Amino acid sequence: MPGLGEFEIIARYFTRIGERRDVLVGVGDDAAVLEVSPHDRLVAAVDTIVEDVHFPASLDPSDVGWRSLAVNLSDLAAMGARPAWATLSLSMPHADAVWLERFAHGFAELAARWDVALVGGDTVRGPLVVTVQVLGLIERDGWLSRSGAEPGDLVIVSGTPGDAAAGLIAWRRGAPHAPAEQALIDRFIRPMPRIELGRQLRARAHAAMDVSDGLVADLDKLCTASGCSAQIDVEALPLSAALCALDWADRELRERCALAGGDDYELVFTMPPHAYADLIAREDLATACTAIGRILAGRGVTCLRDGEEVAVPTGYDHFEADRRG
Amino acid sequence: MPGLGEFEIIARYFTRIGERRDVLVGVGDDAAVLEVSPHDRLVAAVDTIVEDVHFPASLDPSDVGWRSLAVNLSDLAAMGARPAWATLSLSMPHADAVWLERFAHGFAELAARWDVALVGGDTVRGPLVVTVQVLGLIERDGWLSRSGAEPGDLVIVSGTPGDAAAGLIAWRRGAPHAPAEQALIDRFIRPMPRIELGRQLRARAHAAMDVSDGLVADLDKLCTASGCSAQIDVEALPLSAALCALDWADRELRERCALAGGDDYELVFTMPPHAYADLIAREDLATACTAIGRILAGRGVTCLRDGEEVAVPTGYDHFEADRRG
Repeated sequence: MPGLGEFEIIARYFTRIGERRDVLVGVGDDAAVLEVSPHDRLVAAVDTIVEDVHFPASLDPSDVGWRSLAVNLSDLAAMGARPAWATLSLSMPHADAVWLERFAHGFAELAARWDVALVGGDTVRGPLVVTVQVLGLIERDGWLSRSGAEPGDLVIVSGTPGDAAAGLIAWRRGAPHAPAEQALIDRFIRPMPRIELGRQLRARAHAAMDVSDGLVADLDKLCTASGCSAQIDVEALPLSAALCALDWADRELRERCALAGGDDYELVFTMPPHAYADLIAREDLATACTAIGRILAGRGVTCLRDGEEVAVPTGYDHFEADRRG
Repeated sequence: MPGLGEFEIIARYFTRIGERRDVLVGVGDDAAVLEVSPHDRLVAAVDTIVEDVHFPASLDPSDVGWRSLAVNLSDLAAMGARPAWATLSLSMPHADAVWLERFAHGFAELAARWDVALVGGDTVRGPLVVTVQVLGLIERDGWLSRSGAEPGDLVIVSGTPGDAAAGLIAWRRGAPHAPAEQALIDRFIRPMPRIELGRQLRARAHAAMDVSDGLVADLDKLCTASGCSAQIDVEALPLSAALCALDWADRELRERCALAGGDDYELVFTMPPHAYADLIAREDLATACTAIGRILAGRGVTCLRDGEEVAVPTGYDHFEADRRG
């Protein structure tokens, strides 16, 4: 059945396997929330990255190690959880000691940053596929989810979306790289999960998720989960100086990167205007945040320029898009 | 670096990523034991299966689904844990609705049996690789591990090892299958994790692990973890009636299947003779258990016949052995 998308697959076949009262959030959010006991709640996320699909084969193994953990920690960030433990499953064609050492080094660098312990693993022979699961802890008074957005909320994004997508383009254009290009490539190569920001948003944001497939595509999932729609003001997008400095990227490409590019691993979230005002006034705000639109009734995501609706670039679905590498 | 084995890889690169006091058992046992809080302890296991490496490409997708969960639940069984939640990562070349439906069905069948809820997943496009992580709960008074065997303990195995390996041979020989062959094929196709037995062994067995790579190979790992050696009495192996009924399997092949064949997912464990006597006297014993040898000081595993040492078949290492399918 060609055209059956990734998210449809998950919804159709895997949402109803087993039912337990202690599953507070199951399949369909960035991570699951599990009630270990009346005392403790756990957050679990899993993500797989495949060579030539999620990262270029030429990526340094240490960056593959970093990425494999980063994409999972980003899911915990989107829930507001504190990371704790990880497991790793590594399928690889042959046991390459140099590759493994570099992979482990990159993984360990990011793990050390967030005090994550690798507690289990499986190495098998096969094509290069890396699956990481992370477990985190969350307080009893709540977590972030995709489903709480309300009309009247602002749509807010952290950081400068589009950098990673532009970095991938710059990477493909080949060396030498101008300083702005290198800064964007670094953003693609070593995404930084917004753990601290996620912690700060807990009990403040109505809804949140991380931006892995593209801002519009992921915001659309948030809107679907919340039963609402969103408008994005294209002029409000917080584009980085590096992105704007590219001589080969016109306005249209910059906006495409910001709206449809994946791999940023920023957070997109919603909250009422007064909460946003409080948030950006915080001196300890972990990552700069920018309001880029609003939540409305209805369905879907629209983009506005000067108040006029413009075409919305679409996101990336692993089973529908062409391979990227 | 050819010849670098799977277990050496894990030990060399992945045992020291992050250190946390709440990791009670980390990389190197069947599963990790994590102290969520003073109240609660979690057991986490991860296993990956790859088409043409861990299962034949012709295996029915429902059996692939069953197996992907079974191999993980078997790790929980080896720790004495109660299964609770699972996550699934599925890499597949294209979204095949028929395949997915059957896969999900087999997964769900086993999940229902042990009240496991699938709480998260990731589907990506790539080669067929299935990674499952399971989370279980364990009482504060202890879990099973590989490392507690003591000289004087008996070596005990559950069920009838060798059936799955003989079943795989029968499968490869092709249809039609005699009833005994079919019984063995069923054992290969739908391994049954020994969850209940693991629960019964908790606080009784000194050491335990599950038999996935072969009885001798896995017992050898248990001995290494415990700092001891083991002797197996080949005549004491509890061979199934089906295995003994095969007209194409002589004694040597039967014993090879039992000692070196993988995929049985029985438990091998050690305990003092009096505890063994108590165990097998239990009316509610979940799986038949048989003493097949003893723990001694020293290193390694030896096999005896009539008190004389005989050659020991070796186990399966994904990076050292030829592909099997």
